[in-house]
Amino acid sequence: MKFGIFGGGKIGGKANPLGDSYAYQDFIQYVIDAEDLGFQSAFLVEHHFTGVGQLSASLSLLTFLAARTSRIRLGSAVIVLPWHNPVLLAEQVATLDLLSGGRYEMGVGRGYRKEEFDSFCIPLSEAQERYVECFELLIKSLSSKERFSHHSKYWNFENIIVEPAPMQQPHPPVWMAAGTPQGIEYVASQGHGVLFDQIASIAEIVERVNIYLDAQEKSGYARDAMRCGVTRALHILNNESEREKAYERRRETLKKIGALARRPGANTPATFADVDIANDDAALIGTPEEIAERLQKLADGGVEYVLLTSATANRATLETFMNKIVPQVKLRAPTPRKAVA
Amino acid sequence: MKFGIFGGGKIGGKANPLGDSYAYQDFIQYVIDAEDLGFQSAFLVEHHFTGVGQLSASLSLLTFLAARTSRIRLGSAVIVLPWHNPVLLAEQVATLDLLSGGRYEMGVGRGYRKEEFDSFCIPLSEAQERYVECFELLIKSLSSKERFSHHSKYWNFENIIVEPAPMQQPHPPVWMAAGTPQGIEYVASQGHGVLFDQIASIAEIVERVNIYLDAQEKSGYARDAMRCGVTRALHILNNESEREKAYERRRETLKKIGALARRPGANTPATFADVDIANDDAALIGTPEEIAERLQKLADGGVEYVLLTSATANRATLETFMNKIVPQVKLRAPTPRKAVA
Repeated sequence: MKFGIFGGGKIGGKANPLGDSYAYQDFIQYVIDAEDLGFQSAFLVEHHFTGVGQLSASLSLLTFLAARTSRIRLGSAVIVLPWHNPVLLAEQVATLDLLSGGRYEMGVGRGYRKEEFDSFCIPLSEAQERYVECFELLIKSLSSKERFSHHSKYWNFENIIVEPAPMQQPHPPVWMAAGTPQGIEYVASQGHGVLFDQIASIAEIVERVNIYLDAQEKSGYARDAMRCGVTRALHILNNESEREKAYERRRETLKKIGALARRPGANTPATFADVDIANDDAALIGTPEEIAERLQKLADGGVEYVLLTSATANRATLETFMNKIVPQVKLRAPTPRKAVA
Repeated sequence: MKFGIFGGGKIGGKANPLGDSYAYQDFIQYVIDAEDLGFQSAFLVEHHFTGVGQLSASLSLLTFLAARTSRIRLGSAVIVLPWHNPVLLAEQVATLDLLSGGRYEMGVGRGYRKEEFDSFCIPLSEAQERYVECFELLIKSLSSKERFSHHSKYWNFENIIVEPAPMQQPHPPVWMAAGTPQGIEYVASQGHGVLFDQIASIAEIVERVNIYLDAQEKSGYARDAMRCGVTRALHILNNESEREKAYERRRETLKKIGALARRPGANTPATFADVDIANDDAALIGTPEEIAERLQKLADGGVEYVLLTSATANRATLETFMNKIVPQVKLRAPTPRKAVA
């Protein structure tokens, strides 16, 4: 089982300019610590105009991190394609991949926050179409060795060749979020990695991982659970008095995710706030022993790659996780070649 | 007199993927060497689709350099605004400024290469209008502490606030290229720095610097020649046998600049190829003594800031320049407070 960190979230507000700077430095140090402690990857989010300082120019921060680290994989989770010029994006991606020595993991997505689409003055109803168009042109831009022209609904380019070429040929590994069987099977069939959300229960995750592995095999790829990134919230409790506060925080997170993801036309935000947190096993909340138990269930189900989003996001948490929790988990041999079913 | 380096030019072709990587590493080392040797700044170009590997994602490379350096100022010369989404650009600029500890110098321009506009499918005739619109929104995005909406011909945003805030408030120093008296006076009146080209003779440069300083004063700013960046080609000759080759190279450069800058409708490229290179004093081509003499003329005329574009772009050249050439130049006191006229 391997672990990554997932985040780049709230990093200071605009009110205090030094606040932003300190928060960035803290996050940079967190990624350096993660590399030092043997984490496999750091995946960064992208959000805009939140007013709470969420990371906007994720590729910029990843490029800075490329210079400050040497081994850890650097990923996006995800670049929201409908907001970007696919060719300028390809240039930034290729430059990051090159400067990091081929360590970039290219997570892409369609976006879901209505507020962000409204701010970009792009209808959320165009998201899927723009996503598909941008993705195709991004991949072509990264991989074409020859000049080409492109004319589609939203983008037009004539006689272009994207420089530099990425180090990872023909392009960095692609990751896409998926939840439904059809979605997971599609991602697997394309040879892309899949990102699973932090809300699904252990049973759901295990089911999805196996759908993915089966679909990989069916499409002629080797079964490889390292291509299933399972995001989990991490909150290690030092004592019982911290438990209720941690549950409260989890409820808030779920509420926010629900509110931000609400669909246009729905007047009441979807909410996960009524989830029974104590019996919800999705998050890695608990004592080291409790967390190890949940990881064991994931490992037993075939999960090999867990991306942690931590409320504290500091070295102490990562150390406890790596030194006190991970050793308690009995790992299976790497991805079995036969379907578990 | 202070010195910067100017470049990021041809850094490998797409044919050899490792070529790009090595070339980037060479350029990164060159900037680190420049910092080490006391250079004030590194200004990077932006070009697209050249097929010869010119730097495309300049802000990405600058962000990487921010992590590898600690003192040198990191500049764009220039970001070609008509090709960029001004708000996404502001996010990248602010992130770079923050991560570099406030070392970013924001050179912006309208663009001039017809081939690039054709490839972006943006008419060169729209360049000026797009440039103005993008610049205004870029500045507003960087400096606004409040949410705002923006609706103009090319860009629409609703209820946005750009995060993070840049470290340099309200925004990083702006630089614009200018050549005509009207252009120079406008740039000075706005409080922006000016970038002068590598083709103008010493007499022309001296005239322009003084137009700028006078206009600064007239607009209520302190006279400050550090806000006039004078680009000069550098080619140090170790012996006479290298001279003809250096001249030939200079002719080629001028020919290329002329061809790339040609205006639509002109069938024959403008060309500088008939310039009498031996008597043209624009470039710093020659023995250390000859180069020192040209720098002396610039210094005597009020130039305080020279940006070097070097054919060799290596540490040895920078060392020779700093250790053998600069000490020969008798520097004036910093910018005189009275007009030279």
